[in-house]
Amino acid sequence: MAHQPARTARIEFWFDFGSNYSYPAVMRIDELVADSDTKVVWRPFLLGPIFRSFGWETSPFVLQKEKGAYVWRDMERQCAKYHLPWKRPSNFPRRAILPMRVAILGSNEPWISAYNKQIMLMNFAQDRDIEAPQLVGEVLQGLGLPAPEILRAAQTDENKLRLREQTETARTRGIFGAPTFFVGEEMFWGNDRLEDALDYARKQSEEAGSGPKD
Amino acid sequence: MAHQPARTARIEFWFDFGSNYSYPAVMRIDELVADSDTKVVWRPFLLGPIFRSFGWETSPFVLQKEKGAYVWRDMERQCAKYHLPWKRPSNFPRRAILPMRVAILGSNEPWISAYNKQIMLMNFAQDRDIEAPQLVGEVLQGLGLPAPEILRAAQTDENKLRLREQTETARTRGIFGAPTFFVGEEMFWGNDRLEDALDYARKQSEEAGSGPKD
Repeated sequence: MAHQPARTARIEFWFDFGSNYSYPAVMRIDELVADSDTKVVWRPFLLGPIFRSFGWETSPFVLQKEKGAYVWRDMERQCAKYHLPWKRPSNFPRRAILPMRVAILGSNEPWISAYNKQIMLMNFAQDRDIEAPQLVGEVLQGLGLPAPEILRAAQTDENKLRLREQTETARTRGIFGAPTFFVGEEMFWGNDRLEDALDYARKQSEEAGSGPKD
Repeated sequence: MAHQPARTARIEFWFDFGSNYSYPAVMRIDELVADSDTKVVWRPFLLGPIFRSFGWETSPFVLQKEKGAYVWRDMERQCAKYHLPWKRPSNFPRRAILPMRVAILGSNEPWISAYNKQIMLMNFAQDRDIEAPQLVGEVLQGLGLPAPEILRAAQTDENKLRLREQTETARTRGIFGAPTFFVGEEMFWGNDRLEDALDYARKQSEEAGSGPKD
């Protein structure tokens, strides 16, 4: 077609609800893409099996106490900077398999971004047990969704397998932490690289849009 | 005094010439503080003994190959963003004890910032062996300094001890990587936090300046 519009930019957002630096990124991305034609592709995956593949039994923020001590102060400052509520989780890293299964089930649904934010707030602003079915159900209900139905679908073998497979994909793509963003094959690691990843996505789509039309 | 001016803000800049993320921070800080009354206090220290105290024999970017693969691409992009030249060092992390001894010797001298930049460029833009006395001498000469005299003073037992002691101070202050910035007791880790550290320093000094005069 002669008048094909510029391509929509796409950014893959790989995250785990237990990951503290995923929290500000989940909270910030909608506003950052609001004025642009960028589509966020949500990619929930489990960080635990990735860490175990490195021989680590838990988060490096727990294993390396010097970095761990720093990280909680940094989170406090970062959340203040972004005007996000913050309460240090009393349990870290928090198990989040049930809410992650719901996230992968709903990853293409219109409610996914609002759901991700609510679960993140439960973990990092309210210090709640995000693995509890009741809490996940309340979050879904609060979004006007059929909670029992979604929770049932999230716990099917097929959906459980989907989360395991996505975690394996994360590993094979070289993901070693969260949040991680992909724009095509270009990887960006950390909340600190979110703006850079979005700039890159926009430039790529401009170039694609201004190239030869098919 | 009744008319004491606002206090000069101070930021401690802890770095190692072998540290790749110290490179953009060393190159950027002068411009970032140019319009403000912020004093940079240079704190060279050796990252190697810090890593060894964690049981690591070398840089985590070498030990953890997934992160390592990412870091070099990230450096390339970060340097492009900051308009800094970049060439991946063929030897990493590069031994830098001699230039570090010169840095601690000159840490209060007017030439220190220019010297730090030149050594960093040799490592991360020219892939040169920065441990070679001839190279360090050339850098000093290029700055119009008495190179043989400075190299001699850098290699005295007293100055060698000073670098070992500063490294031990880094460890006791909880430093686990470089660059690290301190504003008072507030620690900021990484080139990504340089702007935040400077903002914090300015706010602290404004508060001190607007407080009761002595």
